[in-house]
Amino acid sequence: MGRPRSTRVTVRDIAAAAGVSPATVSRVLTGQAVVAEETRAAVRAAMERLGSPEPAAARRTTARPGAVFVRCPYLLTDYFGTIVTAVAEALERHGRELILSAGSSAQHNGALAALPRRRDLAGALLVLPVEEGADLERLRRQDLPFVVIDPRTPVPRDIAAVSASHFTGARNLTAHLVALGHRRIGFINGPADWLASTSRFAGHTAALAEAGVLVPPELVTSIEPTSDWGHTAAARLLDLPDRPTALVAFNDKAAIGALRAAHQRGLRVPTDLSIAGFDDDYLSRTSIPTLTTVRQPLEELGGLAVSLLLRLVEGTAVEALHVELATELIVRDSTAPAPGH
Amino acid sequence: MGRPRSTRVTVRDIAAAAGVSPATVSRVLTGQAVVAEETRAAVRAAMERLGSPEPAAARRTTARPGAVFVRCPYLLTDYFGTIVTAVAEALERHGRELILSAGSSAQHNGALAALPRRRDLAGALLVLPVEEGADLERLRRQDLPFVVIDPRTPVPRDIAAVSASHFTGARNLTAHLVALGHRRIGFINGPADWLASTSRFAGHTAALAEAGVLVPPELVTSIEPTSDWGHTAAARLLDLPDRPTALVAFNDKAAIGALRAAHQRGLRVPTDLSIAGFDDDYLSRTSIPTLTTVRQPLEELGGLAVSLLLRLVEGTAVEALHVELATELIVRDSTAPAPGH
Repeated sequence: MGRPRSTRVTVRDIAAAAGVSPATVSRVLTGQAVVAEETRAAVRAAMERLGSPEPAAARRTTARPGAVFVRCPYLLTDYFGTIVTAVAEALERHGRELILSAGSSAQHNGALAALPRRRDLAGALLVLPVEEGADLERLRRQDLPFVVIDPRTPVPRDIAAVSASHFTGARNLTAHLVALGHRRIGFINGPADWLASTSRFAGHTAALAEAGVLVPPELVTSIEPTSDWGHTAAARLLDLPDRPTALVAFNDKAAIGALRAAHQRGLRVPTDLSIAGFDDDYLSRTSIPTLTTVRQPLEELGGLAVSLLLRLVEGTAVEALHVELATELIVRDSTAPAPGH
Repeated sequence: MGRPRSTRVTVRDIAAAAGVSPATVSRVLTGQAVVAEETRAAVRAAMERLGSPEPAAARRTTARPGAVFVRCPYLLTDYFGTIVTAVAEALERHGRELILSAGSSAQHNGALAALPRRRDLAGALLVLPVEEGADLERLRRQDLPFVVIDPRTPVPRDIAAVSASHFTGARNLTAHLVALGHRRIGFINGPADWLASTSRFAGHTAALAEAGVLVPPELVTSIEPTSDWGHTAAARLLDLPDRPTALVAFNDKAAIGALRAAHQRGLRVPTDLSIAGFDDDYLSRTSIPTLTTVRQPLEELGGLAVSLLLRLVEGTAVEALHVELATELIVRDSTAPAPGH
């Protein structure tokens, strides 16, 4: 690279200084997981002292395994940020580079259509994609392996997807409220065309039907999943002549908005009104009272999506293309027996 | 750049020898026609003497402009997620790819030492780096442009860094409480060795000193900035024989913990006790009561870091390497006149 030999540090120099073999240094440099942490630290310390071995690395860049393109076209809030962090950590364990496209400006930038032409990519992970099934189908036919995380709409059978079990999560949550004697339960759902919304509504309906109750239409509403929308929807439900005794919200943010609407009306939660959310995010653990919610397995979704993608990349057999991960009901202080129960 | 001339020639070296700006050298190298023939000859002569500036040229030859390596070695919560999203959107506007390293596993993986060897990178952005100044100094000497976002410890003068004006933010917040009649103010600070902690404490001290009050040591405490730590620290302060009338917390998460401690003791916020946070994150807008806080310019930090980095990459003159962005006091419902004031 035009530099005098003497100034150049080689893998051998590092190996000698760290007291390990050159092959071990190479494994550390390529991020392979089979090296003991102690050894890894010794190699890093040697590199700190001597510098990084340059020419070998230049050759290695061509051999670097293909990167993974991750698109999460939203603000990386706790929800999306947790998924992307889990994906980043899993890819690092596999020695794969993560190319990130994030923020709402990534929703319609056409990056998806350009992906299959790229030689540097091994595959892609699409978080809550804005595209319809037909667009994903088109991408699939172009031979770039990809996995959908948390699909917004139903995904064609031949496209890999990982999601949380929305149906079971919602059914367990409503069953918890039914067991506490609640029958009039306001359901503050997400956007009507989202897979998560229709699945959760089905779970809610199923749990009430098991108790012999049909869901009255006036107790169901669809919102954007934010605190402000949750507040507005809860206010409307709580101002009904025959007020619900419990509210289930699409996410914890909306449930926090509902908490505020109850507070403004002098309703004590959970004595006068039970409120529950979905996600188990930071808000649900710190609100007063803390929120009963359904934990979404966000870290696991990210990690599983990476393993599924890498198996597709390597051509390994995959048992199932559509995987649902279990959710978990977390009972906290915002739900209690229905008044008079 | 502190290296022997003979080992590697940079655009800056050529620029200095030819008596032109680095941008002009870049224009000559890329064959752009806007450079006067006389200037072009001077640059060529300098290259005859010193050699061609290699790394920059190598990075420039790839068809795709160099990618930017972004390291944010934390869980992408609302705080870090907002910064990374802003960075992602700004890089997309500039047609630069973002290679992400995130999650706590990225804190000690040695990725930083390997960066300068990589020919595919134009530069790097380091969010709240775990490294000390000396490590960053070493990286700087290796000719890969980088910018530190939200430095944890003071950054050497010759390293580019963008941060929020912690001092002014904290001083304005405490001045707001002083104006409301508060004199005994509990200060729940971040880790003692963080730049943000020492700067904010200085701002707090300054605002009280202006009112003729010195900060009593028993009212100051250092915590990890989480809700649980905030709760514990607030509990201790509120159980002092001479209780503070206000609490200032290092971030909104810790302030929410303090809110809970007050609630458990039957103290009404803000009537009996004022509480304020820092960040203006989601929690501060949805808590009951909503939190008085200091808005950190997270989107702006991300966007500014990208422009600063790209100017360094392109060799354009940069007015200032250390940039502080203004914070903003957001007064909400959790602060009120001191009891009896």
